[in-house]
Amino acid sequence: MKKLFFTLAFLLIFINFSFSQDNEVISNIKNRKSVRHFTGESVSKEDLNKILISAMCAPTAVNKQPWSFIAVTDRKTLDELSNKLPSAKMLSQSGAAIIICAIPEKAYDGKTEFAVIDCSLAGENILLTVESLGLGALWTAAYPDNDRMSTIRKILNIPENIIPLCVIPIGHPTGEDKPKDKFKEENIHWDKW
Amino acid sequence: MKKLFFTLAFLLIFINFSFSQDNEVISNIKNRKSVRHFTGESVSKEDLNKILISAMCAPTAVNKQPWSFIAVTDRKTLDELSNKLPSAKMLSQSGAAIIICAIPEKAYDGKTEFAVIDCSLAGENILLTVESLGLGALWTAAYPDNDRMSTIRKILNIPENIIPLCVIPIGHPTGEDKPKDKFKEENIHWDKW
Repeated sequence: MKKLFFTLAFLLIFINFSFSQDNEVISNIKNRKSVRHFTGESVSKEDLNKILISAMCAPTAVNKQPWSFIAVTDRKTLDELSNKLPSAKMLSQSGAAIIICAIPEKAYDGKTEFAVIDCSLAGENILLTVESLGLGALWTAAYPDNDRMSTIRKILNIPENIIPLCVIPIGHPTGEDKPKDKFKEENIHWDKW
Repeated sequence: MKKLFFTLAFLLIFINFSFSQDNEVISNIKNRKSVRHFTGESVSKEDLNKILISAMCAPTAVNKQPWSFIAVTDRKTLDELSNKLPSAKMLSQSGAAIIICAIPEKAYDGKTEFAVIDCSLAGENILLTVESLGLGALWTAAYPDNDRMSTIRKILNIPENIIPLCVIPIGHPTGEDKPKDKFKEENIHWDKW
């Protein structure tokens, strides 16, 4: 009886493990959510460094790395950004922010499109690393909105030729925000459109 | 002597595990590489489904999900794409490809920029999931090159109003391709530019 129980338990664990479980990378991708509610706690420099290292692991067209990252932890600066950017109000409660800066003149062929795409890939690395560290974040767009970009440039001393692509508030999540299921079969085509 | 050896070995493993090891998400981000050399083996539909599910987990501006994905496994189509796209020659050896299609009219504010950014984030999810499954891939750009986009539209019956953003060959890596270290301290600014 005891032997049967253990055999069954073992089989169940084995089946669960081999057939239904996502690996940690995939389950982190599924668990990532846009976090808009933070506890107000600060974010450690150690975690911010890990996040920035991940960002620079993204691929870039012809390896041009047309990017720069501003990591903000200064409370006054976070509050000023929060006050002047209605889309990023939650900065008043986040512990930090990363502003991704796209640099067209460094991009392949000097093209803005490549700078924006390369920096977007880096941005997803940031969001996924944040999730993996038990922190929360979300992408608040700056580009292509001229007003937002010029507000951010002014507050952070960013030169005119640099595109502040987005502001990513980072902090400790309250737990209110949940991932969305966005899977739609009709968005997949097999072999042809 | 034997006891001392095992104690030391255990301590070393413990120290390594607790202080220096990245979590699996971060080490997958660091291990991701642009794979250009494939064994020619096919890629299972099960893996392609996992990859496509990950793609649709990316955030999109105002949750518009302005995307569609074409997964190609048909050998003839892969070869035709390989012949007509010099940047994606390796499709002749990859087992599959995913073409990310950006749909401006579905994007927030009808803007091409948001469609491109949202689809780029989905693209990084694809690349990272591929790496986590032991497969290899790379981003070969189509947008903003009009010739490449029109070649891809023709081969895959993609409507004119849809942007084929990139072609991502996916396959079993030969092991030749290695990750690049792109970390640069000077690309980080603290608090201000």
